[in-house]
Amino acid sequence: MSQPLYPVVFQPSGRRGEFVEGTPLLDAARQLGVDIDSLCGGRGLCGRCQILCAEGEFPKHQIASTVGNLSAFTATEQKFEQRKGSLDGRRLSCHARIEGPLVIDVPPSSQIHRQVIKKDIDEREIELDPAVRLFYVEVPVATLDDARGDAERLLDALAEQWSRTGLRIDRSLLADLQRTLRADEWRVTAAIADDTVIALFPGLHESAYGLAVDVGSTTIAAHLCDLVSGRVVASSGLMNPQNRYGEDLMSRVTNVMMNPGGEEELTSAVREALSDVLLTACSQAQVPVDEVLAFVIVGNPIMHHLLLGIDPTELGGAPFALAVDSAVTLQARDLELPANPAAPVYLPPCIAGHVGADCAAAILAHPLYRQDPVTLLVDIGTNAEIVLGNKDRVLACSSPTGPAFEGAQISAGQRATLGAIERLRIDPQTREVRCKVIGVEPWSDEDGFAAAVAATGITGICGSGIIEAVGEMLLAGVISADGLMQGSLADVTPRMQPDGESHRFVLIAAQDGQPEIAVTQNDVRQIQLAKAALYAGVRLLMDAYPTDAVDQIQIAGAFGSNIDPKYAMLLGLIPDCALESVSAVGNAASTGARVALLNLDSRAEIESAVRRIEKIETAIADDFQEHFVAAMSIPHRSDPFDELFRVVARPAATTAPKRRRRRPRR
Amino acid sequence: MSQPLYPVVFQPSGRRGEFVEGTPLLDAARQLGVDIDSLCGGRGLCGRCQILCAEGEFPKHQIASTVGNLSAFTATEQKFEQRKGSLDGRRLSCHARIEGPLVIDVPPSSQIHRQVIKKDIDEREIELDPAVRLFYVEVPVATLDDARGDAERLLDALAEQWSRTGLRIDRSLLADLQRTLRADEWRVTAAIADDTVIALFPGLHESAYGLAVDVGSTTIAAHLCDLVSGRVVASSGLMNPQNRYGEDLMSRVTNVMMNPGGEEELTSAVREALSDVLLTACSQAQVPVDEVLAFVIVGNPIMHHLLLGIDPTELGGAPFALAVDSAVTLQARDLELPANPAAPVYLPPCIAGHVGADCAAAILAHPLYRQDPVTLLVDIGTNAEIVLGNKDRVLACSSPTGPAFEGAQISAGQRATLGAIERLRIDPQTREVRCKVIGVEPWSDEDGFAAAVAATGITGICGSGIIEAVGEMLLAGVISADGLMQGSLADVTPRMQPDGESHRFVLIAAQDGQPEIAVTQNDVRQIQLAKAALYAGVRLLMDAYPTDAVDQIQIAGAFGSNIDPKYAMLLGLIPDCALESVSAVGNAASTGARVALLNLDSRAEIESAVRRIEKIETAIADDFQEHFVAAMSIPHRSDPFDELFRVVARPAATTAPKRRRRRPRR
Repeated sequence: MSQPLYPVVFQPSGRRGEFVEGTPLLDAARQLGVDIDSLCGGRGLCGRCQILCAEGEFPKHQIASTVGNLSAFTATEQKFEQRKGSLDGRRLSCHARIEGPLVIDVPPSSQIHRQVIKKDIDEREIELDPAVRLFYVEVPVATLDDARGDAERLLDALAEQWSRTGLRIDRSLLADLQRTLRADEWRVTAAIADDTVIALFPGLHESAYGLAVDVGSTTIAAHLCDLVSGRVVASSGLMNPQNRYGEDLMSRVTNVMMNPGGEEELTSAVREALSDVLLTACSQAQVPVDEVLAFVIVGNPIMHHLLLGIDPTELGGAPFALAVDSAVTLQARDLELPANPAAPVYLPPCIAGHVGADCAAAILAHPLYRQDPVTLLVDIGTNAEIVLGNKDRVLACSSPTGPAFEGAQISAGQRATLGAIERLRIDPQTREVRCKVIGVEPWSDEDGFAAAVAATGITGICGSGIIEAVGEMLLAGVISADGLMQGSLADVTPRMQPDGESHRFVLIAAQDGQPEIAVTQNDVRQIQLAKAALYAGVRLLMDAYPTDAVDQIQIAGAFGSNIDPKYAMLLGLIPDCALESVSAVGNAASTGARVALLNLDSRAEIESAVRRIEKIETAIADDFQEHFVAAMSIPHRSDPFDELFRVVARPAATTAPKRRRRRPRR
Repeated sequence: MSQPLYPVVFQPSGRRGEFVEGTPLLDAARQLGVDIDSLCGGRGLCGRCQILCAEGEFPKHQIASTVGNLSAFTATEQKFEQRKGSLDGRRLSCHARIEGPLVIDVPPSSQIHRQVIKKDIDEREIELDPAVRLFYVEVPVATLDDARGDAERLLDALAEQWSRTGLRIDRSLLADLQRTLRADEWRVTAAIADDTVIALFPGLHESAYGLAVDVGSTTIAAHLCDLVSGRVVASSGLMNPQNRYGEDLMSRVTNVMMNPGGEEELTSAVREALSDVLLTACSQAQVPVDEVLAFVIVGNPIMHHLLLGIDPTELGGAPFALAVDSAVTLQARDLELPANPAAPVYLPPCIAGHVGADCAAAILAHPLYRQDPVTLLVDIGTNAEIVLGNKDRVLACSSPTGPAFEGAQISAGQRATLGAIERLRIDPQTREVRCKVIGVEPWSDEDGFAAAVAATGITGICGSGIIEAVGEMLLAGVISADGLMQGSLADVTPRMQPDGESHRFVLIAAQDGQPEIAVTQNDVRQIQLAKAALYAGVRLLMDAYPTDAVDQIQIAGAFGSNIDPKYAMLLGLIPDCALESVSAVGNAASTGARVALLNLDSRAEIESAVRRIEKIETAIADDFQEHFVAAMSIPHRSDPFDELFRVVARPAATTAPKRRRRRPRR
């Protein structure tokens, strides 16, 4: 006589099947392909496979409550509660057996491929499926009758207990393999990446971490992520130590070109910095560094190459040939990282000679290649990396904006650090200036400003501050649409001061030994050059797509996070777009690195997307110069746009025939 | 109208086909699967594809001579002769085109899979198919229109020009990739192992080398092989520097057990020695070390583990668990070898805790697993590794012979170096002794011996010498079949001297300040113990097979090369076998390493053979002790065997009841 079969439904997947009495729920779930996690392989140790016996009626059999249809609480589950605390009415699905019809809830925390909670609204959802997973395994003891090597015995056990066949053991584990196997009586937890055992821990080991790093030209930002929960457990940042070899990328390349072999020093510097951010993050989160089992590192092509030990000279001149553009996978030891030596290190593909793995990661974080709206993604640094497109077609280029947006080459410019002016308003009638300083809460015309600013002083103006200053100067008639300083205002306001053959507009007068902060004619020109370069690149892509408008704009990077999109549009950094469709997306490259760390499939996704991207080389595009020259002046804006500002009259922005030509109507 | 088709036959394969006029011979050969080498990909540069237009009639078409049916000598071939010397009437098959029916001879030197000339009669044939091959390739120049990375451009060229797809580039090449591609105008030669480009040379590069190493307990022996011709171009040897940590393996293991972490020092010592033999061999053959592109390293389990950085403690006691028994593939950089960093290093599998990769290599050199005769292969060192079987079944074990066969633990014993007695005869009537000394041509009773030996002196007796001494002592009645010194002979010959409670037999009297060289009762006991251990191991395998006789015996190792098989059989080191079927096969492990270096398929062959080998653990075999005790005395020999010796009467070897029991009749 055959045993009775009981129907079981798993929620939320809705998968259902019939099972003989006594079947463990975990086995039933596996047979149905229901996503339930387990690290210990059904031994009741890890608690990852917890489920809830659902209330409510069973649709087919009209059973009011199904709780009684599950086997009684086992000794193993009692032991688990003693070790790890109450299960709160949940059951370990590896030990709870089917004794009647059931509806089972699998909570998100028990799913292998659970969603990672998004840090903010603009991020994409991440389905947790990290590059490295842990497998607890009990290895047969070595005996005289069993002549297999310990390595082979471990691999055979992984094949038998986890159906993981065809694995190999990284050579770095061989030295300690025998000790580790014997440390907890042949019970070990294997960390597996791809088809390789990359780490081995004695006994049941439940934690694994990964580091997502954006090696920027200026700063190195790292997030230490828990590979089990997907959460960021620590973040650390560091100024790129290569700054001492040159402020911007090109001077670092020059440095290398002048000193053959100099790239080795740059390589050491960036690798040491990586080690530093790793150790800092581990120390913050109190994570042992040997539990860091995976890395994703993104960077622009020059940082990418230097990190890999490649002389970036070829990137310094046409044809800007990358040594390698595909994704690169290494191991931690290859970069001398003080983590688990075999931990895989993934570098996403570079898109082109000036459009790096950081841009690929930014696209992964904001996957315009999957969407309908035609999206413009700009990542503004010393070069602007520009990507335009949607699911039909994606184009990318880089434009040499120079460092003005980062506050460099501006008379009072500085990086966006304490003491820098980051926001600024000019009264169009009185031309009086009020501003906000980084690290100081009140605006300069609000109570408590003087006391608050005393600690830092006002030391200069950063990228977002100079953008707002130039925008406000335009709105207040201090400059013309062509960017010319209106010297005649010197009669009206003492802020307009003669300055060589031109004039300068004083934002903060010199006082108490602090120097004056002013915007000079040259500062305005620098901003015009930078924004013209950016806009010309954008136009090049729009012409090639072709489209005369974009549906949404995402501005990435540190500068992009601080800039007010209104001013970016006012000055014509970016094309016309409904303002609510313009957003600052922060360090998108860093977010993308985290996506690639936590979800293995996303790597294939971005590799395939990058292969499809059409690269436009601004240096040989015939139209680039034309677009660039046309974009030098500040565009005419239609009335609805003006309403965004509190301005009523704009004295100096009435006629500009060129502008009409270069701005397509929607 | 279709072009005429001409029949072409390639010799020696006999493959034939019909081809349109103008087809290059190399293309025709490729289409037919005829084995013709080419490094330059048909550019007329490398000369590897030379063929001869054969004389003689064309069987189908009765054409007297076919020479006129080949296209005229080309400018490319003229240029080749200017660069590399006369083709001697041969043609480059990449440039010679079919213009009529042809019979083509492909000389062995133009075949990819040519046979390597055997060094001596006992070696197996090696079909050349090395782990690393060279591919000349012309890479498209980087341009602004071609945004591919240089790495991808190289891989694409290899796919297009050589149909090698799915390749990857080793990370060690990335740093210099761009410089190498540009060094000779984007012409490079790629060295490919498996699916990886492991080295890159500018322009056409025609040489590649590999090193086959046997890391023995006592000595490290290396052969540098030309991977193109298969020839050994240099050999170098070195005493294993680990000797300073203990003469024999077990004392090295003890050393490590006493000093945790001590294995690191042993590992460094053996890796440095490997570097030394590599550099010495390269310097001998004037080969640049970066042209060494492949390694095969064999060794006993302890040397194997130490080389890999594995603490061998587990091998020092039951259950003698190997950390890893499968074949291991690493790269030169992993062992800090000063060769091409990505050069693959192959270590064949270990068979069991005492039967190492050296034994696997020995089996590969003498593949008894492919043959009909039941073969006994013994590799004698501090442990004897014993393999028995044929194509039906193979068994292996290790037996603790101790170091007596290497001259250790013998009163006058020494290694087989200059000054050691290696051969010895005792006149059965007079008990006078004559001997041969290593490094001295004449025997001691021949003219010129005194003068020749003056340079070295007679410093001791080595393994083969002590075996012959004990054998001759038995034949001359100096010892009994039980190994007892016949003290009564002291009345007859002054060579028999009292020695404590027993006697010793003086081989060389003390003179001119040189000490006496004698065989003591203890020396005889040591040899009896060693040979009993060896024989007991052999018997264990014969019982397990089961067989009571073997068809052939191969004795490997340094000791095995020097020993006279007659004496080995006289003393009962090895079982009865027709003497002509007993051979010394020299350093079979080293030969096997060379086979694995030059022929890739042989690796799969030995891995599969090793998996099939049945391991017998002597330590737990019930019969081992019994066999061991029974084998202590010296066996009774039948008359035909006696005739091999010049002896007429053997006074002391008449009765020995035990012996009959342990020696199966054939």
